[in-house]
Amino acid sequence: MPIIENIFSKIPEQVPDELFQTLLSNKQIKIERIISKGHSSSVNNWYDQIQDEWIILLEGQAKLQFANNTALLNLNPGDYLFIPAHSKHRVHWTDPTITTIWLAIHIYPNEYDYE
Amino acid sequence: MPIIENIFSKIPEQVPDELFQTLLSNKQIKIERIISKGHSSSVNNWYDQIQDEWIILLEGQAKLQFANNTALLNLNPGDYLFIPAHSKHRVHWTDPTITTIWLAIHIYPNEYDYE
Repeated sequence: MPIIENIFSKIPEQVPDELFQTLLSNKQIKIERIISKGHSSSVNNWYDQIQDEWIILLEGQAKLQFANNTALLNLNPGDYLFIPAHSKHRVHWTDPTITTIWLAIHIYPNEYDYE
Repeated sequence: MPIIENIFSKIPEQVPDELFQTLLSNKQIKIERIISKGHSSSVNNWYDQIQDEWIILLEGQAKLQFANNTALLNLNPGDYLFIPAHSKHRVHWTDPTITTIWLAIHIYPNEYDYE
Protein backbone atom coordinates (compact mmCIF):
# COMPACT_ATOMS: atom_id res chain seq x y z
CA MET A 1 0.00 0.00 0.00
CA PRO A 2 1.35 3.41 -0.84
CA ILE A 3 2.07 5.75 2.02
CA ILE A 4 -0.17 8.79 2.27
CA GLU A 5 1.25 12.04 3.54
CA ASN A 6 -0.30 15.47 3.77
CA ILE A 7 1.22 18.55 2.20
CA PHE A 8 -0.22 20.79 4.94
CA SER A 9 1.10 18.73 7.84
CA LYS A 10 4.40 18.85 9.71
CA ILE A 11 4.74 22.58 9.17
CA PRO A 12 7.27 23.95 11.66
CA GLU A 13 6.05 26.83 13.80
CA GLN A 14 9.26 28.74 13.29
CA VAL A 15 10.63 29.01 9.76
CA PRO A 16 13.97 30.80 10.19
CA ASP A 17 15.13 29.72 6.74
CA GLU A 18 13.00 28.90 3.74
CA LEU A 19 12.45 25.14 3.81
CA PHE A 20 12.96 22.94 0.72
CA GLN A 21 11.75 19.35 1.09
CA THR A 22 12.03 16.79 -1.69
CA LEU A 23 8.87 14.67 -1.92
CA LEU A 24 9.93 12.68 -4.98
CA SER A 25 13.09 12.69 -7.05
CA ASN A 26 14.33 10.72 -10.03
CA LYS A 27 16.29 11.41 -13.20
CA GLN A 28 13.37 13.19 -14.84
CA ILE A 29 11.79 15.29 -12.14
CA LYS A 30 11.95 16.54 -8.60
CA ILE A 31 8.77 17.28 -6.66
CA GLU A 32 9.43 19.66 -3.83
CA ARG A 33 7.51 21.29 -1.00
CA ILE A 34 8.74 24.77 -0.22
CA ILE A 35 7.74 26.58 2.96
CA SER A 36 8.22 30.32 3.19
CA LYS A 37 7.22 32.84 5.84
CA GLY A 38 8.24 36.35 4.98
CA HIS A 39 11.22 35.11 2.96
CA SER A 40 12.25 36.64 -0.32
CA SER A 41 15.19 36.42 -2.69
CA SER A 42 17.85 39.07 -2.24
CA VAL A 43 17.59 42.02 -4.60
CA ASN A 44 19.09 41.11 -7.99
CA ASN A 45 19.44 37.49 -6.92
CA TRP A 46 17.73 35.64 -9.76
CA TYR A 47 16.94 31.99 -10.09
CA ASP A 48 18.38 30.96 -13.46
CA GLN A 49 17.57 27.28 -13.74
CA ILE A 50 18.67 24.66 -16.23
CA GLN A 51 15.32 22.90 -15.73
CA ASP A 52 11.73 23.83 -16.48
CA GLU A 53 9.60 24.36 -13.40
CA TRP A 54 5.88 24.14 -12.79
CA ILE A 55 4.82 25.66 -9.52
CA ILE A 56 1.61 26.02 -7.57
CA LEU A 57 1.03 28.04 -4.43
CA LEU A 58 -1.20 26.04 -2.07
CA GLU A 59 -1.36 28.25 1.00
CA GLY A 60 -0.32 31.80 1.85
CA GLN A 61 0.60 34.58 -0.53
CA ALA A 62 3.59 35.59 -2.61
CA LYS A 63 4.85 38.02 -5.22
CA LEU A 64 7.18 36.85 -7.97
CA GLN A 65 9.33 38.99 -10.18
CA PHE A 66 10.68 38.12 -13.62
CA ALA A 67 13.85 39.71 -14.98
CA ASN A 68 12.20 40.56 -18.29
CA ASN A 69 9.36 42.51 -16.68
CA THR A 70 9.04 45.10 -13.96
CA ALA A 71 5.54 44.10 -12.87
CA LEU A 72 5.15 41.74 -9.93
CA LEU A 73 3.05 38.59 -10.16
CA ASN A 74 0.69 38.17 -7.21
CA LEU A 75 0.10 34.57 -6.24
CA ASN A 76 -2.78 33.35 -4.13
CA PRO A 77 -3.80 29.82 -3.10
CA GLY A 78 -4.37 27.62 -6.13
CA ASP A 79 -2.41 29.85 -8.52
CA TYR A 80 0.01 27.95 -10.74
CA LEU A 81 2.43 28.84 -13.51
CA PHE A 82 5.07 27.36 -15.75
CA ILE A 83 8.57 28.80 -15.54
CA PRO A 84 10.68 27.74 -18.52
CA ALA A 85 14.37 26.98 -17.98
CA HIS A 86 16.51 30.13 -17.84
CA SER A 87 13.52 32.37 -17.30
CA LYS A 88 15.16 34.46 -14.62
CA HIS A 89 12.92 35.06 -11.63
CA ARG A 90 13.01 35.81 -7.94
CA VAL A 91 10.64 35.71 -5.00
CA HIS A 92 9.97 39.37 -4.26
CA TRP A 93 7.77 38.81 -1.21
CA THR A 94 6.01 36.16 0.84
CA ASP A 95 3.48 36.86 3.55
CA PRO A 96 5.29 37.29 6.90
CA THR A 97 2.15 36.58 8.96
CA ILE A 98 1.19 33.16 7.60
CA THR A 99 3.00 30.19 6.16
CA THR A 100 3.26 30.02 2.39
CA ILE A 101 3.31 26.48 1.00
CA TRP A 102 4.49 25.84 -2.56
CA LEU A 103 4.51 22.68 -4.58
CA ALA A 104 7.24 22.80 -7.24
CA ILE A 105 7.78 20.32 -10.06
CA HIS A 106 11.27 20.58 -11.53
CA ILE A 107 11.50 18.93 -14.94
CA TYR A 108 15.04 18.03 -15.93
CA PRO A 109 16.23 17.82 -19.51
CA ASN A 110 16.76 14.21 -20.57
CA GLU A 111 20.45 14.63 -21.11
CA TYR A 112 21.01 16.08 -17.65
CA ASP A 113 22.32 13.51 -15.20
CA TYR A 114 20.59 14.68 -12.08
CA GLU A 115 21.40 13.22 -8.60
CA MET B 1 5.52 37.06 -18.28
CA PRO B 2 4.19 33.61 -17.45
CA ILE B 3 0.45 33.17 -17.38
CA ILE B 4 -1.08 32.47 -14.00
CA GLU B 5 -4.08 30.22 -13.72
CA ASN B 6 -5.89 28.90 -10.69
CA ILE B 7 -6.45 25.22 -10.04
CA PHE B 8 -9.73 25.94 -8.22
CA SER B 9 -11.21 28.11 -10.95
CA LYS B 10 -13.29 27.23 -13.99
CA ILE B 11 -14.91 24.28 -12.24
CA PRO B 12 -18.08 23.32 -14.11
CA GLU B 13 -21.22 23.17 -12.00
CA GLN B 14 -22.28 19.92 -13.58
CA VAL B 15 -19.69 17.17 -13.90
CA PRO B 16 -21.48 14.41 -15.82
CA ASP B 17 -18.19 12.69 -16.68
CA GLU B 18 -14.97 12.81 -14.76
CA LEU B 19 -12.92 15.65 -16.24
CA PHE B 20 -9.25 15.24 -17.22
CA GLN B 21 -7.45 18.45 -18.15
CA THR B 22 -3.80 18.56 -19.18
CA LEU B 23 -2.03 21.53 -17.61
CA LEU B 24 1.43 20.70 -18.93
CA SER B 25 2.70 17.93 -21.15
CA ASN B 26 6.05 16.99 -22.62
CA LYS B 27 8.02 13.82 -23.28
CA GLN B 28 8.87 13.39 -19.62
CA ILE B 29 5.72 14.24 -17.72
CA LYS B 30 2.08 15.16 -17.90
CA ILE B 31 0.53 17.39 -15.25
CA GLU B 32 -3.20 16.93 -15.10
CA ARG B 33 -6.15 18.36 -13.22
CA ILE B 34 -8.85 15.79 -12.57
CA ILE B 35 -12.31 16.79 -11.42
CA SER B 36 -14.59 14.17 -9.92
CA LYS B 37 -18.00 14.42 -8.30
CA GLY B 38 -19.34 11.08 -7.15
CA HIS B 39 -17.40 9.26 -9.88
CA SER B 40 -15.65 5.99 -9.30
CA SER B 41 -13.97 3.32 -11.39
CA SER B 42 -16.15 0.37 -12.33
CA VAL B 43 -15.74 -2.66 -10.11
CA ASN B 44 -12.66 -4.64 -11.16
CA ASN B 45 -11.65 -1.88 -13.55
CA TRP B 46 -8.05 -1.23 -12.53
CA TYR B 47 -5.70 1.46 -13.72
CA ASP B 48 -2.55 -0.39 -14.79
CA GLN B 49 -0.23 2.35 -15.98
CA ILE B 50 3.09 2.18 -17.76
CA GLN B 51 4.10 5.40 -16.00
CA ASP B 52 4.72 6.34 -12.39
CA GLU B 53 2.20 8.75 -10.95
CA TRP B 54 2.34 11.20 -8.08
CA ILE B 55 -1.04 12.47 -7.05
CA ILE B 56 -2.40 14.98 -4.56
CA LEU B 57 -6.02 15.58 -3.63
CA LEU B 58 -6.58 19.32 -3.28
CA GLU B 59 -10.30 19.56 -2.59
CA GLY B 60 -13.06 17.09 -1.79
CA GLN B 61 -12.71 13.51 -0.64
CA ALA B 62 -11.96 10.14 -2.20
CA LYS B 63 -11.26 6.51 -1.47
CA LEU B 64 -8.68 4.60 -3.49
CA GLN B 65 -8.32 0.86 -3.72
CA PHE B 66 -5.18 -1.07 -4.64
CA ALA B 67 -5.37 -4.52 -6.17
CA ASN B 68 -2.85 -5.94 -3.72
CA ASN B 69 -4.82 -4.87 -0.65
CA THR B 70 -8.43 -5.00 0.44
CA ALA B 71 -8.30 -1.89 2.62
CA LEU B 72 -9.41 1.42 1.14
CA LEU B 73 -7.22 4.52 1.27
CA ASN B 74 -9.10 7.60 2.45
CA LEU B 75 -7.90 10.81 0.87
CA ASN B 76 -8.58 14.27 2.23
CA PRO B 77 -7.41 17.69 1.03
CA GLY B 78 -3.62 17.88 0.96
CA ASP B 79 -3.12 14.11 0.96
CA TYR B 80 -0.58 12.90 -1.60
CA LEU B 81 0.89 9.57 -2.61
CA PHE B 82 3.18 7.97 -5.14
CA ILE B 83 1.73 5.23 -7.35
CA PRO B 84 4.48 3.24 -9.08
CA ALA B 85 3.92 2.06 -12.65
CA HIS B 86 1.79 -1.10 -12.81
CA SER B 87 0.57 -0.72 -9.27
CA LYS B 88 -3.04 -1.58 -10.07
CA HIS B 89 -5.51 0.79 -8.47
CA ARG B 90 -9.00 2.16 -8.88
CA VAL B 91 -11.05 5.04 -7.54
CA HIS B 92 -13.53 3.36 -5.22
CA TRP B 93 -15.46 6.50 -4.27
CA THR B 94 -15.47 10.27 -4.58
CA ASP B 95 -17.74 12.57 -2.65
CA PRO B 96 -21.01 13.06 -4.58
CA THR B 97 -21.90 16.29 -2.74
CA ILE B 98 -18.79 18.37 -3.45
CA THR B 99 -16.24 18.62 -6.23
CA THR B 100 -13.06 16.63 -5.79
CA ILE B 101 -10.00 18.21 -7.40
CA TRP B 102 -6.88 16.16 -8.03
CA LEU B 103 -3.49 17.18 -9.30
CA ALA B 104 -1.74 14.26 -10.99
CA ILE B 105 1.86 14.14 -12.19
CA HIS B 106 2.45 11.32 -14.65
CA ILE B 107 6.13 10.52 -15.04
CA TYR B 108 6.91 8.69 -18.26
CA PRO B 109 9.82 6.31 -18.66
CA ASN B 110 12.58 7.83 -20.78
CA GLU B 111 12.24 5.29 -23.54
CA TYR B 112 8.51 5.86 -23.88
CA ASP B 113 7.64 8.16 -26.75
CA TYR B 114 4.67 9.94 -25.33
CA GLU B 115 2.42 12.27 -27.37
